[in-house]
This record gives sequence, structure tokens and C-alpha cells, in this order.
Amino acid sequence: MGKTSKLRLGLVAGALAAALAANALPAAAQPAAAPAAIERGKILTQPNVFGLFTTLKLNASWNAVPAKARMAAADEVKRLVEKHKDNVLVDIYLTRGLETQSDYFLRVHAYDLAKAQTFMRELRATTVGRHSEVTETLVGITKGLNYITKDQSPGLNAGLFSATYSGDAPRYALMVPVKKSAEWWNKPLEDRLKEIETHTAPTLAFLVNVKRKLYHSTGIDDTDFITYFETNDLLAFNNLMIALASVPENKYHVRWGSPTVLGTIHSPENVIKALAE
Amino acid sequence: MGKTSKLRLGLVAGALAAALAANALPAAAQPAAAPAAIERGKILTQPNVFGLFTTLKLNASWNAVPAKARMAAADEVKRLVEKHKDNVLVDIYLTRGLETQSDYFLRVHAYDLAKAQTFMRELRATTVGRHSEVTETLVGITKGLNYITKDQSPGLNAGLFSATYSGDAPRYALMVPVKKSAEWWNKPLEDRLKEIETHTAPTLAFLVNVKRKLYHSTGIDDTDFITYFETNDLLAFNNLMIALASVPENKYHVRWGSPTVLGTIHSPENVIKALAE
Amino acid sequence: MGKTSKLRLGLVAGALAAALAANALPAAAQPAAAPAAIERGKILTQPNVFGLFTTLKLNASWNAVPAKARMAAADEVKRLVEKHKDNVLVDIYLTRGLETQSDYFLRVHAYDLAKAQTFMRELRATTVGRHSEVTETLVGITKGLNYITKDQSPGLNAGLFSATYSGDAPRYALMVPVKKSAEWWNKPLEDRLKEIETHTAPTLAFLVNVKRKLYHSTGIDDTDFITYFETNDLLAFNNLMIALASVPENKYHVRWGSPTVLGTIHSPENVIKALAE
Amino acid sequence: MGKTSKLRLGLVAGALAAALAANALPAAAQPAAAPAAIERGKILTQPNVFGLFTTLKLNASWNAVPAKARMAAADEVKRLVEKHKDNVLVDIYLTRGLETQSDYFLRVHAYDLAKAQTFMRELRATTVGRHSEVTETLVGITKGLNYITKDQSPGLNAGLFSATYSGDAPRYALMVPVKKSAEWWNKPLEDRLKEIETHTAPTLAFLVNVKRKLYHSTGIDDTDFITYFETNDLLAFNNLMIALASVPENKYHVRWGSPTVLGTIHSPENVIKALAE
Amino acid sequence: MGKTSKLRLGLVAGALAAALAANALPAAAQPAAAPAAIERGKILTQPNVFGLFTTLKLNASWNAVPAKARMAAADEVKRLVEKHKDNVLVDIYLTRGLETQSDYFLRVHAYDLAKAQTFMRELRATTVGRHSEVTETLVGITKGLNYITKDQSPGLNAGLFSATYSGDAPRYALMVPVKKSAEWWNKPLEDRLKEIETHTAPTLAFLVNVKRKLYHSTGIDDTDFITYFETNDLLAFNNLMIALASVPENKYHVRWGSPTVLGTIHSPENVIKALAE
Repeated sequence: MGKTSKLRLGLVAGALAAALAANALPAAAQPAAAPAAIERGKILTQPNVFGLFTTLKLNASWNAVPAKARMAAADEVKRLVEKHKDNVLVDIYLTRGLETQSDYFLRVHAYDLAKAQTFMRELRATTVGRHSEVTETLVGITKGLNYITKDQSPGLNAGLFSATYSGDAPRYALMVPVKKSAEWWNKPLEDRLKEIETHTAPTLAFLVNVKRKLYHSTGIDDTDFITYFETNDLLAFNNLMIALASVPENKYHVRWGSPTVLGTIHSPENVIKALAE
Repeated sequence: MGKTSKLRLGLVAGALAAALAANALPAAAQPAAAPAAIERGKILTQPNVFGLFTTLKLNASWNAVPAKARMAAADEVKRLVEKHKDNVLVDIYLTRGLETQSDYFLRVHAYDLAKAQTFMRELRATTVGRHSEVTETLVGITKGLNYITKDQSPGLNAGLFSATYSGDAPRYALMVPVKKSAEWWNKPLEDRLKEIETHTAPTLAFLVNVKRKLYHSTGIDDTDFITYFETNDLLAFNNLMIALASVPENKYHVRWGSPTVLGTIHSPENVIKALAE
Repeated sequence: MGKTSKLRLGLVAGALAAALAANALPAAAQPAAAPAAIERGKILTQPNVFGLFTTLKLNASWNAVPAKARMAAADEVKRLVEKHKDNVLVDIYLTRGLETQSDYFLRVHAYDLAKAQTFMRELRATTVGRHSEVTETLVGITKGLNYITKDQSPGLNAGLFSATYSGDAPRYALMVPVKKSAEWWNKPLEDRLKEIETHTAPTLAFLVNVKRKLYHSTGIDDTDFITYFETNDLLAFNNLMIALASVPENKYHVRWGSPTVLGTIHSPENVIKALAE
Repeated sequence: MGKTSKLRLGLVAGALAAALAANALPAAAQPAAAPAAIERGKILTQPNVFGLFTTLKLNASWNAVPAKARMAAADEVKRLVEKHKDNVLVDIYLTRGLETQSDYFLRVHAYDLAKAQTFMRELRATTVGRHSEVTETLVGITKGLNYITKDQSPGLNAGLFSATYSGDAPRYALMVPVKKSAEWWNKPLEDRLKEIETHTAPTLAFLVNVKRKLYHSTGIDDTDFITYFETNDLLAFNNLMIALASVPENKYHVRWGSPTVLGTIHSPENVIKALAE
Repeated sequence: MGKTSKLRLGLVAGALAAALAANALPAAAQPAAAPAAIERGKILTQPNVFGLFTTLKLNASWNAVPAKARMAAADEVKRLVEKHKDNVLVDIYLTRGLETQSDYFLRVHAYDLAKAQTFMRELRATTVGRHSEVTETLVGITKGLNYITKDQSPGLNAGLFSATYSGDAPRYALMVPVKKSAEWWNKPLEDRLKEIETHTAPTLAFLVNVKRKLYHSTGIDDTDFITYFETNDLLAFNNLMIALASVPENKYHVRWGSPTVLGTIHSPENVIKALAE
């Protein structure tokens, strides 16, 4: 912050300094170096990775596509995913029957957002893409933990890393956007840390049956966070969300859901096949 | 909560503990064991059952379907319901004429939500389904009573179970989503119990002419509850809802309705026939 | 309320008792007995009558209907109204040119809501109905006066009944939904009575040039009331509404309009003819 | 208010009396007598005149109309305006390129609103009208000044009448709806007068380059006022609006814009020609 | 303000005078004189320049345009931009894949807004324009600095001008509308200056990797400001926006985004080509 040190920084102490501290990444942080090919195990755990979420709804025109061409559309998507495998990791979920605004949704990970855009643009040019309307798009970036770090909250940090998912293979995926109020962002770091600790504690019991991943979106989209979940136990998930609703941090939400998107987990081609039947 | 006991749980006492207590189901509760075939009497009274509500609106293209094919669509739906009878219980209600956003709505019960999704996906592939647009979808789970239990509120609990519906067969079904504020979820259990007692007392007088069923949706959808009613006396229902509006619990609603969906009760094939005429 | 008397009713005194008192109709009140045929003079003044309001907008496809068939559609609607005259009273208003979301709207009165639904369903199957989209539907029930009764407010009650409409035949009809806040419904009856008296007093001067009718909708639709007006003097109506905006009761509105629907009064066939030209 | 004098009017003193006083028009005021033919200079300055604002958007089908027929549509509109010249004064503005929800908008003045409706209905039946969708409609009535009268605020009243527009011929027209809160309408007249004085003072400096006209809509539409502006200096207009945002009266706005509609000023046929190219 | 000096200006002191002072441009300021031809370097740095932002979404009909004609559409746009180069500066960004409501967006600069309208109208008549729907349009004007001037805030002013963008060529453009509350606009200038200083300080560190441009829209559109950014480092941008969310000024936002529009930077013809593939 060289130059700014000469300025009237007394004005910006307090909340601001805390805010910057809480986002310890340097302003000009570089994206994670892209490996030769996308490795699922790596890209899903690294910081500085883009997550592009898109929900799509089939137009009525899809019904007029001949059955054979609809089925071939599944292979076309499979080939497209294969073609872009060095640039993006693609997951597709089936929402038809469970959602109003979509029939399927994509979660695309990339080190370079422009490459995720290219993949999505080409998907829109496939048979199924041409008959689909995009109904929601959210872009986020992964980061290291902001609050529950080893230094700031050692007990909860240990808790987060000592329990792992041990349920059946998850059959359900959920995407839930979160936006927080100006009051939240203006609170001192210590206060936000306390609230997030209170928020985190009840989630530990659910680590065994609900997986969770967080993307940061402030300014890139009209949300602050995209929260993503996988589970095979929707009752447990419901109880987890009630626990999260019941802590003071919830008072600072200006968006939590809207939409909440619930889909089932299948391979990309099987999602398209299910929609082609 | 084994591991968390070592953490700084002083932070999460109060409201949180109460919240968890109020949702006494263990985090990893199993869905109710599915019987060999779905039995209406059982599935409508058990906890841990999924309720999938979907409203649909006919496209203008429906008018262009030949009258004979429109009528055949009713049988097609009947056969589909029969085909899935071991997996889902299907109710369909006629809303055309009473609603803006729909012509009919479905209430589908299942022990396994993925099976309800499969039914809905196949319904969308039928003649009437291909000419329909989904306009609302809500997913909930049934649970045991949270507040008015024998232990916590014995008098009202007895009241709930001592009166039964004694009016004419209900001709009307209503679906009303409910979402509560962060302030509500953060109140101590004792306070919420008192509010729910005040909410419940005036409802007892209406047990004779309004049936009621509750589904829990927090986190699964953008609502906390789906309330479902059947009645043959809409004036009594209106008076019941005014009574519920007039208790303090109403101050914690951030969504009550939006949409309120009102339909008439018929067999699935008769709903489609009415729309085919 | 027999059984509930043994319960912890101390919890539900105060506001609740007042609320029930204010809605003195017994929970299981029967609909008004239907006369042999619908009589306009009766059904428009009786309590326990359903009012179904529906706004409709013509699709672009209406322009492609041959002019002769469009004109024949007016007679078709006339015959349908005649066919259902023992079950429903039908008014149709022309909104094209005055509204965004509709070209015409219907007010249908019935002793049995299911019969109003049947009429609307058959209307949707007529020529003009098939080319129309429903853009708003509200259902209400008429009741006796809640507040300004002979007992509770004798002076204003006398005022309400001593002045009658004496202007030219009304050419304009307006439909305005009203929803009140939880704060309103939780106020003691005496407080609400005072507010409604303050609300009513300035309306008396307008009884000579604005007709008014009230329908109750709480729980049946996403509104508490549907207010309906007829006038030939829109300036007087505007002044009346400013007077109503200027009393404290207005502070408890969470919906007042949205939509406000303004149409002109014609016979049903003339409304369709005007749209057919 | 003859009869009401016997009622419990102590209840309605204060704010209500003030509100009525501020709207000094008698409840049954007659519309201004219509002259033999509409005179622009008169109808634009008289009270009790209806202003009907309608924004329209061309459907995609407009592109399929042959170029010659599109151009002929301009003459058709010109002839329609001529045909109705004894009943309505019609202005049309071009918004394509400047607005999302419209390509053009109409401002129609009439002594009798039903005649404005008839004109709009016939416009919808012309070639361009058949390919247009109405996206907003607002109806208002002109009145004399409510607050800044010679009696109540002589200095500002003189200011309003001593400055006149002296810029280049305005090329831009703006329509901005305004709705005020229940708190505003419940303030005593003296308080509202003070706020409107504070609101009016900074506008005087802009009388030389921004023209302004006000329509009253409370109860007739979901807005209280329609404000209409013409200017050739959008920077001055922007500064005027910032000045108006910066006075306390702004705190009572529940709607200011939404939509703000900005168009350019041309003759009716030239607007349609521009859209036909 | 000559004439107004005789009025009761005691009423409009305080906040109003401050507001006018903060917008030091005289009411009748003239637009910047247009040079013979638009020069990018000039028009992007001058005050009193119009910025017209428009997002567009391709209709399904675009898919039916033959591939050759879709590709020719790119040249057609290029020629149109060339044709209008003396009147407007045109930038086009690709949003397909990153946004829900658009496939591309335009930023058009002009000294005369009517000329930007003419360009947009002609664009809508091109092949790609005819198959596009406008989904958002915002109009703003550039001005000199309001708060962080040499006089009012010399330190921060120096900071703003001493750092320049030094990252890789930006690949991303973002458009974010901002609207502030009545409370904001009613604050005294000194208070707003302090808040903007607190807002500005943390942005200095990001001048090296985020470019920023501001347009004023109060009254011209339903927003107060249009903020435009270019960057090649979306993580830095996200951190910048978190810093801005964390200062008190954020509490006065009634709109910040909604929509946030994110696109990639290409030449106009390359954007259309990408959509034509």
C-alpha cells in the first residue's frame, strides 16, 4: 500500500483494516498455476480456482427434436467435455422434476475463467444447448479459509479437518447463493470471527453426511458466496440448515438461496440422456 | 457431537443448543423404511417422507392438440401413476380458473426423493406434460411434532389429537409456503414454544372442518415449511387464517404464501380430463 | 371452542380473543343458501358469497383469428354466461388501453366457488379464452361488517347507510387488493376499530359518487381483501383514495394495489366485441 | 360533509382534515368542459385533464412485416391521430436504443378518459400496434397546485411563474412515476408544505432549461404522481434530480422511477418511421 | 439563482446548499464540444460525455439463421461501427457463458446522446440486432470528480493520479450500477466527503490491476451511478469489492449491481463471430 501511507489514513482505520486483514490474499495474487491437464483431486481443493455455475431449462422446442437426435445429444456433450478436459472440469446435475427454473445445472471449474466461458459457449452451440435457456449463472473463486484458521480458531479448525464424509455416495447436489449485508461487512474482524465460530460449530456434526464447498463472488456477481453441498441424506441436510438458520450470523443475510438449486448426481451424458427420454 | 465437545463451545450455547433440541431428530436419521408398496394411510402419517409439490400451467400449444389426443392424455397419466405406485403416491388438483400461475398441481409423496423425481420426469414426457410449463416446485420432508409434544405442551397436544375432521368430504386443497425470519430461528426454544402454543390454540376449533399437514423445507428450498390444507368450508378456512394472522408468530413470517395455491380435489385422470375439454 | 377450554389458554388471551371476536362468524358457518336462480340484487348484497376476479390479456395469436370469428366470439361468451346463469353472476370489464397486464377482467359471483371455477374453465375453452392468458386471479368471500357495526360504531354505521350513490351511471370499475401487516392483525380490536373509524369517516362524503364492495381473502389468496369500486368521477375517486392514504391505517398496508385494475363498464358481449374490432 | 358532522369526528381530526384541505378540490368536482376541438395550448395547462402514458415494445414479428407495410404504418398512425383530434391530444416519443422495456411511448391527453381508451384500443389495432406489446400504462389527472399556492407560499409561487424555459427546443422527454409513503400522507399539511418548499426551491434555477408537468394518480394506478419532463440539457436535468434527491422529501419516496422512461421528441409519424427503417 | 434569493430560502439551507456545492457544475453546463471525429483517448477522459450501456440476449431464432449469414453479421456490425465513427465510440463485450440475461453488451460513448440512440437503433436493424432482445439499458454522463478533488482531499487526490494500471492487458470488463439512499443524499457534504475518502483509500492499492470509470445517472435512469471496470485479475477485483463492501458508505446503497455484468474484451466483430460459431 506504499503510496497510500502518506494519505489521511486515519479515516480508514477500524473496519477497513480488519476487512483487508480478513482477506489476507494480496491484491494482485496470481491464479494457481494450471497443471498440464485438469486433475479433479487437485482443482477441487486448490484456492484461486474459478467455479462457474449455470442452470439451464429446456425450451418447448426440445420436444420436437427427433428422439434419436435427442439421444445423440448426450454423446455430443460427452465429447465436448472430453475436448475441453485440459481446460475445465465439468459436472452436470439433473434438476428436472425438483426445480422450477431449470432442468439441469453445470458446475465448471477452471484456472482461467475465459476458458470456462469458451466451454459454456460451445455447449450452447450443441443440440441440447441450442434448445436450452440459461436461467441462472453465478461465478465464484475459491480461497483459503478466512476465519476458521489454525491461528484464529484452532479448535474449530481442527474439528473441520478431523471429520470426513462417511455416508453413502452422495446422490444429491445443492447450490445456494449467499449475500451479506453492509452491516456484516462493516463489523470488526473479531466480531465476524465470533459469529463464524458460532456458525461453524454446529456444522461439524454434519461433516460425516454433508460435503461442503465455498466460492467467493463479491463484485463478480450479485452474491457474496456460492455454497455447494453434496449429500445422500436430505433430512440431515435440512437439520444442518436449520442449525445455521438459528445462529446470529443469519441476521446478516440479505440473500440465502433465491435460488436454492437441488439436483441429482449423474455423469454428464446420463443427465442429457435422462432429459432425452 | 463427540469431537466438537473439545472445541470452544461456549460460543455456541444459548440459541444454538435450543435450536438443535427443537429438532430432536439425529443428524443422520434414516428415511422411514419403505414398505413393499406405498400405502396411502401409512405414507401420509409417517415422518421422514418427502413431499414434492409442483404447479403446472398449460402452454397455448395444448389447444392445438386434437381433442381425442387430449382426452387420451388423461388415461396416459392414469397409467403412469399406476406404473409408479410402488414408489410414489400421487395426488393431482385442478387449479384452472382459481389460479394465475397454474392449471393443475401435483403433490407427490415418496420415501426416496429420487423416485419422485423420476416420476415427475416421466410425467413431463407425457402428452399433457409436454404441453405444460412448471411454474413452482417445492420439496419438503415430514417430521414429528417439534413444539406441541406431549412433554412440552400436554394440553394442546391432547387437543390436537382429540378432535378430528367431521365435515363433508373436502373439495378444496391449498398449498401455502411459510418462511420465517432469522429473528425467529434465533429465539430460545422456550420463546418459540410459547409462540407456537399461541398459534396452535385457535386452530383447534377448526380441526373439525380443516385438515392440515406440514412439510419441512429449510435449505432444501427457498422456504422453511410447506403447509397443506384440505377443506370443504373456505369461509372457515379464511377465519382460521385470520386467527393465525392475529398472533405474534405472524410477525416472524418473511413468506406466507407467494404463492398461495388453491385447487379442487379430483382423481388424477379427472383433472386432466377437465383440462382436456 | 369446547375442548380448548381445558388448555393453557392464558397463553392466547389478549390479541387473539379480540381477533376472533372481530370475526364473529362461527368457524363452520354455512354458505348462504343458493336461490333457484342467481338474482343480481341478492347475490351482490349477501354475505358468504364468493367473488372471483380474473384479469386476462389477449395473446398475439388473437390478431390472426379471422375478423368474423373474433366477432362470433362475443356471442359465444354471451351464450356461456347465459348457460351458467343459475350458478354464477358474471361481469366483464374492458381494460385494454388503460392497463398493461390485461385487456379485460371478470368479476364472477357464486354461492359455490367450484361452480365459478367451472364457468372460468369453460370460458378458457371459448375462442377468446383460448387466445387469452390469465394475468391475475383473486378469490374472496363477502362478510357482514367487521368494525363499523350498529353496536360498535353507531354514528358511522348510520352514515354508511344514510347516503347512496346519486351520480351518473358509473362508467369505470376498479379492483384494488389490500394486504395488512402482522402488526395490524395483532392490534387489539378496540385499536383496530378506532383506526377503521378514522378510515371510514372521510369516505362518507364520497358515497354519493363512488360505490364500494369488499371481499375477504386472507389465506385463500395472497391478499387480505379485494376492494372493488364503481364510479363515473375518477377525480372524486382519486380524492377519496388520497383521503384514505392520509389516515394512520395506511401505515399497516403491505399491499395496496399491485395491481390496481381500472376498466370501463360494458355488457360482456360488448367487451369482447370491442376487443374483436 | 353534511351528514358526517353528526358522527364521532373527533376521531378524524388532525391529519385527515389537513389531508382534505391540501386537496381542496370538492369530492364531486366536474371535469373541465371540453372545447369543440382539443387545443394543445389549453389542454396542456388546464386542471382536471386526464394524462394516459403508455410504453410499447415491438415484438420480433415486426421484423417480418414487409418494409413497405412498416413504412405505411407511420401514415396509418398519423391518420388515426387526425381522426381522434377532437377527443385526444397525442404525443409519441422514441425510446428505442435508450430503454429496455420499450421502443416508443405515448402521452395522451383527454377530458374524458374513456375517449383516450378508445384511441389506444384503435392504435393497438393498427399495423404497428398489432406488433407491439404494452409494457407500462399509467393514468393521471392534472390539478391545480396543492402546496406552492399564492396563499400558502407566495415567494416560491412567484418564483415558479417568473421564470420560463429559454433553452433550445427540447429534444428529450422523460416520464418518472412517484409514490409516497404512508408516513408522508399522514404528516400534517404544514409539515408537507415545508418539505415541498424545500423541494421546490432548488428547482427554480432549472426552470430555464427543464420543463415539468405533474399528474395525480393515487388510487387510479399504483403510483401517486406521474412527473413528466422535457429538456434539451440532460446534464442540467441530472443536476436537478440530484438536488431533488438531496432534500428530506426524498425520504418519503417508496417509488421514484421504476421505470424512468427517456425518449426523444419527434412527430408521431416520424417515431413510427424511425422504428420502421 | 437570482430570483430565488428573494424567496424563503431559510427553508432550503443545510443539506440542499451542500448538495448543490457537491455538484459544482452549473445547471446549464454545455456538453463538451465535439471534435471533428471521435478520438478514443479524448472521449474516454472528458467530462460531459454520455455513456450508453446496453445488454443484449440472442433469441432462439438466431440458431435458425444460416451459418454464413451469422458470420456475415459480424462484418455488418463492423461496418456500422465504422459508419458512425464520427458520432459514437463503440465497445462490445462477450457475456455469453458468464451471464444469464445477456450474450453481449455494448458501451457507447457520445457527445450527443441522440446520436448514440441512432447508432443503437441501426444496430437493432442489423442481422444480429434483429435476433437480439435488449435486456438492460443504462444511460450516464461523465463528470469531474465530486469529492476527492485537489482542494477537498489533496492526499487521496494525489494518490488517485500517482498510480496507474500496470497489469497485463485487461481481458475482463464489468458494469455495476449503484444507487444510493435518500439518507445518503441528505447527508451534509462534509459527511459524504469523509465517507468517500474512507471508500477511496482502499481502492488505491488496486489501481495497478483494476481500471475504473464512473458515469452519473440520477434521474436519467433508475440508478445513480454506472461503475465500469476493466481488469485481468478477477481475484484482485473481488478483493477490491470486498474492501468497498466493508466501509460505512456501503450502508447507503439501495442498489449495487442487479445486474452485475461480466464480459470478456474483444473487438466488436470478434464478439459477434464468437456468437455466430
